[in-house]
Amino acid sequence: MKAVVYKNKNQVAVEEVENPRIEHPSDAVVRVTSAGICGSDLHMYDGRTDISSGTVFGHEIMGVIDDVGQAVVSLKKGDRVVLPFNISCGFCFNCIRGYTNACLTTNPEKPSAAYGYAGMGPYRGGQAEYVRVPFADFNATKLPGEAGDAFEDDFLLLSDVFPTGYHATELAQVGPGKTVAIFGAGPVGLLAAHSAIIKGASEVYVVDRSEERLAIAEKIGAFPVNFEDGSPAEQIITMRKNNKMLVESFKPGEEKMMGVMCGIDAVGYQAHSIKQPDKEDPLSVINELAKVVNFTGHIGIVGVYMPQDPGAVSEQVKKGIYALPFGLIFDKGITIGTGQTPVKKYIEQLKHLIIAGKAKPGMIVSQHTAIEDAPRAYTMFDFRGIGDGEEYTKVIINP
Amino acid sequence: MKAVVYKNKNQVAVEEVENPRIEHPSDAVVRVTSAGICGSDLHMYDGRTDISSGTVFGHEIMGVIDDVGQAVVSLKKGDRVVLPFNISCGFCFNCIRGYTNACLTTNPEKPSAAYGYAGMGPYRGGQAEYVRVPFADFNATKLPGEAGDAFEDDFLLLSDVFPTGYHATELAQVGPGKTVAIFGAGPVGLLAAHSAIIKGASEVYVVDRSEERLAIAEKIGAFPVNFEDGSPAEQIITMRKNNKMLVESFKPGEEKMMGVMCGIDAVGYQAHSIKQPDKEDPLSVINELAKVVNFTGHIGIVGVYMPQDPGAVSEQVKKGIYALPFGLIFDKGITIGTGQTPVKKYIEQLKHLIIAGKAKPGMIVSQHTAIEDAPRAYTMFDFRGIGDGEEYTKVIINP
Amino acid sequence: MKAVVYKNKNQVAVEEVENPRIEHPSDAVVRVTSAGICGSDLHMYDGRTDISSGTVFGHEIMGVIDDVGQAVVSLKKGDRVVLPFNISCGFCFNCIRGYTNACLTTNPEKPSAAYGYAGMGPYRGGQAEYVRVPFADFNATKLPGEAGDAFEDDFLLLSDVFPTGYHATELAQVGPGKTVAIFGAGPVGLLAAHSAIIKGASEVYVVDRSEERLAIAEKIGAFPVNFEDGSPAEQIITMRKNNKMLVESFKPGEEKMMGVMCGIDAVGYQAHSIKQPDKEDPLSVINELAKVVNFTGHIGIVGVYMPQDPGAVSEQVKKGIYALPFGLIFDKGITIGTGQTPVKKYIEQLKHLIIAGKAKPGMIVSQHTAIEDAPRAYTMFDFRGIGDGEEYTKVIINP
Amino acid sequence: MKAVVYKNKNQVAVEEVENPRIEHPSDAVVRVTSAGICGSDLHMYDGRTDISSGTVFGHEIMGVIDDVGQAVVSLKKGDRVVLPFNISCGFCFNCIRGYTNACLTTNPEKPSAAYGYAGMGPYRGGQAEYVRVPFADFNATKLPGEAGDAFEDDFLLLSDVFPTGYHATELAQVGPGKTVAIFGAGPVGLLAAHSAIIKGASEVYVVDRSEERLAIAEKIGAFPVNFEDGSPAEQIITMRKNNKMLVESFKPGEEKMMGVMCGIDAVGYQAHSIKQPDKEDPLSVINELAKVVNFTGHIGIVGVYMPQDPGAVSEQVKKGIYALPFGLIFDKGITIGTGQTPVKKYIEQLKHLIIAGKAKPGMIVSQHTAIEDAPRAYTMFDFRGIGDGEEYTKVIINP
Repeated sequence: MKAVVYKNKNQVAVEEVENPRIEHPSDAVVRVTSAGICGSDLHMYDGRTDISSGTVFGHEIMGVIDDVGQAVVSLKKGDRVVLPFNISCGFCFNCIRGYTNACLTTNPEKPSAAYGYAGMGPYRGGQAEYVRVPFADFNATKLPGEAGDAFEDDFLLLSDVFPTGYHATELAQVGPGKTVAIFGAGPVGLLAAHSAIIKGASEVYVVDRSEERLAIAEKIGAFPVNFEDGSPAEQIITMRKNNKMLVESFKPGEEKMMGVMCGIDAVGYQAHSIKQPDKEDPLSVINELAKVVNFTGHIGIVGVYMPQDPGAVSEQVKKGIYALPFGLIFDKGITIGTGQTPVKKYIEQLKHLIIAGKAKPGMIVSQHTAIEDAPRAYTMFDFRGIGDGEEYTKVIINP
Repeated sequence: MKAVVYKNKNQVAVEEVENPRIEHPSDAVVRVTSAGICGSDLHMYDGRTDISSGTVFGHEIMGVIDDVGQAVVSLKKGDRVVLPFNISCGFCFNCIRGYTNACLTTNPEKPSAAYGYAGMGPYRGGQAEYVRVPFADFNATKLPGEAGDAFEDDFLLLSDVFPTGYHATELAQVGPGKTVAIFGAGPVGLLAAHSAIIKGASEVYVVDRSEERLAIAEKIGAFPVNFEDGSPAEQIITMRKNNKMLVESFKPGEEKMMGVMCGIDAVGYQAHSIKQPDKEDPLSVINELAKVVNFTGHIGIVGVYMPQDPGAVSEQVKKGIYALPFGLIFDKGITIGTGQTPVKKYIEQLKHLIIAGKAKPGMIVSQHTAIEDAPRAYTMFDFRGIGDGEEYTKVIINP
Repeated sequence: MKAVVYKNKNQVAVEEVENPRIEHPSDAVVRVTSAGICGSDLHMYDGRTDISSGTVFGHEIMGVIDDVGQAVVSLKKGDRVVLPFNISCGFCFNCIRGYTNACLTTNPEKPSAAYGYAGMGPYRGGQAEYVRVPFADFNATKLPGEAGDAFEDDFLLLSDVFPTGYHATELAQVGPGKTVAIFGAGPVGLLAAHSAIIKGASEVYVVDRSEERLAIAEKIGAFPVNFEDGSPAEQIITMRKNNKMLVESFKPGEEKMMGVMCGIDAVGYQAHSIKQPDKEDPLSVINELAKVVNFTGHIGIVGVYMPQDPGAVSEQVKKGIYALPFGLIFDKGITIGTGQTPVKKYIEQLKHLIIAGKAKPGMIVSQHTAIEDAPRAYTMFDFRGIGDGEEYTKVIINP
Repeated sequence: MKAVVYKNKNQVAVEEVENPRIEHPSDAVVRVTSAGICGSDLHMYDGRTDISSGTVFGHEIMGVIDDVGQAVVSLKKGDRVVLPFNISCGFCFNCIRGYTNACLTTNPEKPSAAYGYAGMGPYRGGQAEYVRVPFADFNATKLPGEAGDAFEDDFLLLSDVFPTGYHATELAQVGPGKTVAIFGAGPVGLLAAHSAIIKGASEVYVVDRSEERLAIAEKIGAFPVNFEDGSPAEQIITMRKNNKMLVESFKPGEEKMMGVMCGIDAVGYQAHSIKQPDKEDPLSVINELAKVVNFTGHIGIVGVYMPQDPGAVSEQVKKGIYALPFGLIFDKGITIGTGQTPVKKYIEQLKHLIIAGKAKPGMIVSQHTAIEDAPRAYTMFDFRGIGDGEEYTKVIINP
């Protein structure tokens, strides 16, 4: 079968590899109909991890059950399914507490496994015609309809970026009537905004510098903030101060809360500098969050920070050390939630929102591509489409 | 000043009473601009409580600060405010835990106080030109804008029915992607539906028999269910079974969850019988809820059930004893939340939703009336406008 | 192999039955070292359910892995394990939310399965030499030590009564500094008291009429209340009023909270009447709970109430209808949590408490018996040992 | 009256100052019977803040009501009371959500006020014979008994260090069966350990280098860890690995969780270096926490980190920038809670635990002193009693 294979830094190829098969009675094999390219695939593509040549990429996967092992009871050939990117057992100490992002069974190296990802266990990715699914009863979510139906993109995004955007809102304790600042208008940031609005947030601000992406944020119902216009924290505070109704609703002293209650980092360690947007400044987002989040507020961080990063801008950051404005964070009594998403925790309720027509994550998809054209899609996505006249926000491979 | 005064069963009058004044340094006096007539006012009006003749009615109150006591620090003459119906101290064992519905300070008789209400302490109601507000710093919520502005109705409903509808959704654990059945399309039921949709519920069903009210429910985004067409529980289950997308999304066995996860009773003890809608059947709502709520589901009850009710249909119910299908409730492992709303807990976030244009509770207001016409409004509201060609869903007095 | 088999009302026998074997690749077979007789076994034994003759009883089971199916990855022959009484799949809509008490996969009849229990699916019980465990990776909890070690009783009780007592405290929202009234000093009530004290409750009251059982409650650290001395609610309120330190710590008005914040029903529908203790009064516990639980309090009900009960005292109760003091419950704004325990949710943390020496549930075990003597143990336990001079609180069969 | 007054770095004096009086109708004046010296008083004493000469110190205060303003309703002359160190209004946006640590009313400079503390508003401290209490109904907690009773020390610690230790356990999500590592065996760390054990934690480790303090930790029920013996994270992991029962209870893969689930920093920015204990290393605690806390764990930070610290060891830290191992924290998906304690949120439940004899915070008090000897007590406490042969863990001034 055909698969997208990592070759070297900034190079992937489509190659013929052996078809996957049932290796364990709990396995299934899925014929892939859609597979997303994720921003975190670019971390590997850009050589920021130690992935080996030959790895099949792809952890955003949906398709149709092609075969099941003898132990599988809830799935049968032909079922349409989406796969949470976390590969998890469902029965270890972490999985039973809902932390399928830290499964203790599926990866001997560390508590966490995924399809086709550096350090995440010996699993082939799904940017391919077929993929093997371990513990299939637990790791495949049943979908309605036929392969290629209208909801194909919406459902695919249940594998990672929609739950990850939603998880960010959970970590940041977003709820009805809350105010939210989201840094990054990539797929995760946009779907964090979508999630925040679904949850009834009263004000949602999205920060980026791509006008195309900010236009999507606005369409979702958020206020766009372009960081090329100056400190996003200051911009948001000014916007709120200019909201006459809001300011008049304050009792004396409440004007000390002109920032927001919830802050989300959907960017991570590859953040651009605010002042010199073409430079990488891994702290720029957290610095602004510490300014814009109010006393007693909450920050959710789903943009990735790495324990080691050989390609980092400084010796400190290479070792995973980040110089945070922690004095200010402590003074404000802010909480910080971090880490990978336990997709399984959210996937059913998000699926129901899609079925009910209340969530439409697929609107962020910008391109579809045949598997043969995946290498070009990686190149374009890596450059965000610059020079092509097209914004590459989210690319889906349809094998 | 003029005030709406209870005379006898089914009779109120507008009379001149003495103006309220600052009695304690923490008091304020509010000039009332809007005061709602609440379904629970009808409990007293209908003689179902032992309210004494001469009581000034009205616990849904907004207006403008007219005077403040020497201890008041956060309010000044001219401030636009709305008053949570609970009168609470802010510092007792219950208030500091957020249970302002059970304040231990403000009513010597029991843990709970309100304006102009039977058994709720010695406080005059606000269906009057002025009202005294105890512990004003705590009990008056600051509003933006001028008296009579566009948001007047929306803000007034922050005093009771909007927070009460919202509280019902909290008791029933409504959240993103949840399914909800709400019994009663009066102001509280409709605003529970509005709250559920703001919170991101995926499916909301509203049960009533008034087509006018069900039409509002539908406008809000809910599915209307008319109980004159048969058991609402069965209707809802059938509607869900006919949802092809939904049913196809189930793994084997999940079809045992064809009811909803969250049930809300916004009716209470004066419920109509399903089979004979002109008779009172205090259990009809809870019986249907027990049927329609799934295993592991949650029920929120904000419709009132009385510890004593001299006007009840049976000897048991007169003593506050209700024959519940508790075997079924236990078997399903359902939780039940009950009781009066702690308005203060929700009022700020709901106010922000109104200011941000995300909540529009005022849409349920059906009539405005001068204070002189309040007696006619009581009569019409009590009959729900029957014979008049008009539905009386929510009537506001503008003194 | 030998097994305890139901014959007729009030009759069990020890018979030879066929050994269980691996029927599905996810199964394991456990050689049973300990199996408890549960109060709910007596519901069947007493003919209050429609269990068929020939059923093997026993849902409190521990032992050693004897065989595993090909799909099992976390267990091997010789592992010491305890089995949560719920048989659950781990991957359905309810299991992934933690509600393994309402698994949708393992019982075609309803959402819930267990070993050897009426209406709980086609599973043989564990009062036998061997038992088959479906979905063994999920349904067997690994234990340290050897079969028959010192902790044998403690670990066995992880299968049901310890988690059920703990679950009661969760439903009743017991926490540090809370006040708790527990009705019933059987195994579940005593372990609810043990759990409440482990969680840091400041005052725990346990109600029963057996002085032996109340003595255990006192040893655990609870205040004993004998309901033969009058209304337990009134006794508890009086005890609290006589606590000078407590009363002096109140601000004015706080004396309205002389009951407790958390109430637990560990008795259920076979409750004794308070006034005539030899008669069954299925409402006696809930009536007292409604009196003794304060405004804003919480009730947890783990004692069973049945949707149908042919042996009940009244026509209403036969149909699962219970005449609750719901007017008072609503007036106080009390919440009620009900239902079967999801053992898996608590078993790891309770296991750690046992290993660390902080929980000692085994102290409630009153008798051990060989499997051959199980019929006599049923008889004695059913009569609570009356006439024998011995209290039968908890009997363990050691096959 | 006499009061402890700040003069210069490392110098306080006892001076005559004007008696406080009722300045506002909501005020009370308290005659002080006990006032603690807090570790955070030493921050000022050591010149690490910009406190002005002449400030009266002391935010841990209890005593007897001497006078009340006209608006005060819940207190009268002679009532025994303790004062939460936070001065809060009870009615602002933050107070009504329970965040009395960030009151918006009581300090014009920032959201947070306290008695006698740098940057915390214009309030005189309570290391004096009398102190004025603003918003007294809200800010004074009623106590039982007489001034000087046996519980005097226990109740005094309700003002700050006991709730702060408890708050640390809330931020770190400590609960029944959880494993906890606490850094710092000063009053807050020891009372965090006491709180963790009250809450039912299964294993509690306390890290310090003072054998006297570690001995108290052990008496409380914690495992002592002396960081002079090497990395405390490594010591704790080794202790757990050597726990045979624990290790045998793991399924394959669960040995990846050999650290603890909950980590507490009760030290802050003045931490000692692990390798060179006589040097200050503001990151040493957080670095160890990041190592010892497991994937999916939680960290609670109540030791203070400053937004500015002129006396800091590096230019970065002077500006409140701390070089955290954030890559590792993110990789593990750890949450971090920070900040000052909202004492009011916990004080009632902790008071009940003391009254019930379940909490004994007073056991950590090491010295009592007359107010005249306060200067010497500051000197000794600052040096932790070194040279005196006595450990100064917690000193109480009894004016």
